[in-house]
Amino acid sequence: MPLSDWLSSTPAAEVGACPVRDVLDRIGDKWSVLVIGLLGGGPLRFMELQRLIGLVSHRMLTRTLRGLERDGLITRTVHPVVPPRVDYELTDLGRSLQSLLEQLAQWAFAHSAEVAAARAAYRDPQE
Amino acid sequence: MPLSDWLSSTPAAEVGACPVRDVLDRIGDKWSVLVIGLLGGGPLRFMELQRLIGLVSHRMLTRTLRGLERDGLITRTVHPVVPPRVDYELTDLGRSLQSLLEQLAQWAFAHSAEVAAARAAYRDPQE
Repeated sequence: MPLSDWLSSTPAAEVGACPVRDVLDRIGDKWSVLVIGLLGGGPLRFMELQRLIGLVSHRMLTRTLRGLERDGLITRTVHPVVPPRVDYELTDLGRSLQSLLEQLAQWAFAHSAEVAAARAAYRDPQE
Repeated sequence: MPLSDWLSSTPAAEVGACPVRDVLDRIGDKWSVLVIGLLGGGPLRFMELQRLIGLVSHRMLTRTLRGLERDGLITRTVHPVVPPRVDYELTDLGRSLQSLLEQLAQWAFAHSAEVAAARAAYRDPQE
């Protein structure tokens, strides 16, 4: 069923509670998107993620990683070495979402000039 | 360039200002997503959108439509009839984004059971 049919036949309260909403919440969260994007290049350790993302706090990165693990999008693997090494890696599910995010990112880069031109040309009807 | 390469080679401040961030802001906004999804079925009038979305206020729907028009994702056409009729419709650019959102929605429906199972199985490492 196309999204438009589903939206027009589903009460707003159910739309809010549906799996699509879950996914959009995840995608609306920039840290989750950055982590999924970075892990698209292969497994990374906590410190590597933190260094690559830059301005994220330890606490926020921990919370983001837990959320992604809880949703089955990434795995957390503790290697029994001294000191312990912890790797984060996309699951198959996470990889399938990552490939869609990749398409969105490509869309954004491909069309950013169009969006900028539309903004420059736009006149607010109230002005 | 794959998203992961770009992310790891771009300072966090630039990531925050980049077109991808713009798109994610748009997608993280449920009203924008609902409007784009509904217009995927064809042009609609303001009152039709409001009825279909349900709980959105007049003010919020107006703001959402202006934002989408400003970004070049939808057009607003005033028909010179009495009373005036105003239609909202996806542009080609909006349609290309809509087809990606459609894929995200399909992904969410297809994998919602997997996500739910992962959540049920998840044990917080701090517990």
